[in-house]
Amino acid sequence: MEENPQIPEEQSTESWPRQAWAHLESVRAAAPLIQCITNFVSMDLVANVLLSAGASPAMIHSVEEIPEFTPKIHALYINVGTLTPDWLPAMKMAAEVANQCNKPWVLDPVAAGASSFRLRACLDLLKLKPTVVRGNGSEIMALFKGSVDQTSKGPDSTHDSTGDDVIGAAKSLSRSTGSVVAVSGAVDIVTDGARVVGSANGVPMLQKITATGCSVTALIAAFVAVDPSHPLEATATALSIFGLAGEVGMGRARGPGSLRAELIDALHGLDRDTVHRMVKIGNV
Amino acid sequence: MEENPQIPEEQSTESWPRQAWAHLESVRAAAPLIQCITNFVSMDLVANVLLSAGASPAMIHSVEEIPEFTPKIHALYINVGTLTPDWLPAMKMAAEVANQCNKPWVLDPVAAGASSFRLRACLDLLKLKPTVVRGNGSEIMALFKGSVDQTSKGPDSTHDSTGDDVIGAAKSLSRSTGSVVAVSGAVDIVTDGARVVGSANGVPMLQKITATGCSVTALIAAFVAVDPSHPLEATATALSIFGLAGEVGMGRARGPGSLRAELIDALHGLDRDTVHRMVKIGNV
Amino acid sequence: MEENPQIPEEQSTESWPRQAWAHLESVRAAAPLIQCITNFVSMDLVANVLLSAGASPAMIHSVEEIPEFTPKIHALYINVGTLTPDWLPAMKMAAEVANQCNKPWVLDPVAAGASSFRLRACLDLLKLKPTVVRGNGSEIMALFKGSVDQTSKGPDSTHDSTGDDVIGAAKSLSRSTGSVVAVSGAVDIVTDGARVVGSANGVPMLQKITATGCSVTALIAAFVAVDPSHPLEATATALSIFGLAGEVGMGRARGPGSLRAELIDALHGLDRDTVHRMVKIGNV
Repeated sequence: MEENPQIPEEQSTESWPRQAWAHLESVRAAAPLIQCITNFVSMDLVANVLLSAGASPAMIHSVEEIPEFTPKIHALYINVGTLTPDWLPAMKMAAEVANQCNKPWVLDPVAAGASSFRLRACLDLLKLKPTVVRGNGSEIMALFKGSVDQTSKGPDSTHDSTGDDVIGAAKSLSRSTGSVVAVSGAVDIVTDGARVVGSANGVPMLQKITATGCSVTALIAAFVAVDPSHPLEATATALSIFGLAGEVGMGRARGPGSLRAELIDALHGLDRDTVHRMVKIGNV
Repeated sequence: MEENPQIPEEQSTESWPRQAWAHLESVRAAAPLIQCITNFVSMDLVANVLLSAGASPAMIHSVEEIPEFTPKIHALYINVGTLTPDWLPAMKMAAEVANQCNKPWVLDPVAAGASSFRLRACLDLLKLKPTVVRGNGSEIMALFKGSVDQTSKGPDSTHDSTGDDVIGAAKSLSRSTGSVVAVSGAVDIVTDGARVVGSANGVPMLQKITATGCSVTALIAAFVAVDPSHPLEATATALSIFGLAGEVGMGRARGPGSLRAELIDALHGLDRDTVHRMVKIGNV
Repeated sequence: MEENPQIPEEQSTESWPRQAWAHLESVRAAAPLIQCITNFVSMDLVANVLLSAGASPAMIHSVEEIPEFTPKIHALYINVGTLTPDWLPAMKMAAEVANQCNKPWVLDPVAAGASSFRLRACLDLLKLKPTVVRGNGSEIMALFKGSVDQTSKGPDSTHDSTGDDVIGAAKSLSRSTGSVVAVSGAVDIVTDGARVVGSANGVPMLQKITATGCSVTALIAAFVAVDPSHPLEATATALSIFGLAGEVGMGRARGPGSLRAELIDALHGLDRDTVHRMVKIGNV
């Protein structure tokens, strides 16, 4: 598998599609309240993805209300995409309140390697022990190495998610932080430091839509919210469900503009049969 | 009617559909300039809804330019969705300048009950006498009670708009503030403290699209801009026109992603016949 | 031509469509990294337009990371749409770093004439010698005159792009600043102070979608990134390619909501034949 990032049919655990459906059904039934402290570019798509999956997004990021509001949520999502120093206190406070209240929280370290400031902010947030961290290959490598990426393309990756170096970095990062670590790519990788699981759902054109990475991380938060004791499983199924919505949407799309709407429609309409038949998760 | 929130055909005032069309035609003809100080999540949809209705949106929120710019506008829209303390001076200054210049202004108290900070900010803005306040049941109840909502789901409501408690709160709030108060729900309620009018247009899936609530409040601002002496009527017709665009759009949509685009197309294309035939507004 | 803003077929330089295709192909091949410091309303559409054209957008606007990140980019885009004073230091620093590193940068002076604060900010940015400035007629007139526009409609223009006064102002502004100046309208005008070129692609409904102006300026940045020694040509071809995507998209759209998605699909899918056949650029 590490040689070939395709997940063969026979390696698919029979239970993964069922788990994926169970998580999606739980989100639809429970409508978990997901507090999002995310970047300006992604707020619209993040909120719409959460709503279409059945969750209840709340974009609330003021330090004045976090102590009172964050205890009411079911999961917290933090994303550093358009970071400036004035946003950091709210991010840290919300993570700390979430930890105190035993709420799961998920970190998206967008463009972690783009600058020292951004890298330091991400490493500081990592110390607050997110339940899950999801990035692309370049972002996870930057967190693992703790150094700025001289070839950074901002939020776009220059690393493959299934290279040995990236999987090794993800496992090591997971062991040192205690977080589940997910790496997006042609095959998405999820690890808790011991197990490594791959999700092969998705279509390349999702990368031509801004904030799809941010949005799948938000969906992970919603899935972890309804199954907080199984963050690796919830992360893998969220990645697959999002990718599957992309696959279904791609059947009707003519480009990235229509795919954005079709993705949301597909996520809203996914049924059990499609999920059971098409979710592709397996051991790596 | 308070028992049954369905508005019977025979209760529809013959003139409501005609008023709705007259307001929409006036917005298209006059292209009123609507200054929007709104949350990050909603800026895109708010601007697109205003443009598709024929209005001219301006997202200008700096205290440096409000004294010079706000006197040129036709209506002001304030929305506290992603509130932080640094936005409050601009909101208050803009409301004050609008009042001094006799420009109508409309308040959307998003998630008013989510925290003490947010509630206090909304109550302070209410003291600046908005022409119209539009919220969901939970938001209007929080403003009426002046207390934080322990079951808050952020921007999502846990109250029905047509319950006796909510209608009573809306009337009372209207009388104490002098503002027209609108409560969104399966049937939207509008009151000036004496009259109570209901708009039964709309489709449930609009709630699965982020910022539709913010956007209909912006549309109210555009309608009040062209008929400032009839804020109750302009509010009711704006709510119905927006809901009707949702109904028309829903005929082509396959989910919340496509509905978002179809809603805007429908709002842009609404014709007199459709408005006359399908607007449902009546006394409650 | 100054009498009649229609560009006659026979005036089209044979080479313009070929240049337009060459620029688009270069953006697709090189995926230039475009740093965007833009307004909140436009971030989503700007990023999606850049991605669909083949460029790599990075919304990074913190003074903490500009000195380290901006030297890695291929072009910088600055847009003052939702300006507040705290954004100006990052805008100026980024422009200065871009200049030091010989990276092209492009300015969108949204609503330049709406207030003294905004006008002064734009004039200060102009002193930092943008490679290209793109605005509508009212914005370019405000920069040329250096005075606030009493009839300002915010981001919407009250001036035609092809009036003698506007073309004269654009040429004069170009000569005094050294920037290529572009004026959007029914026909888009581009000048380097000597030559004046017109692009006649586009459809009126693009003006009913928020941030299309912001987005075409971002596309100019991507085109200038791949041909920095020909900013006039890159600006004219970017304007035409964007307008052409609008024309193609309009063939499938039913209103501004669907046109927004169709525009992005069309930009992503534009082929050589369509570009060669439909790009309309000529001398004015």
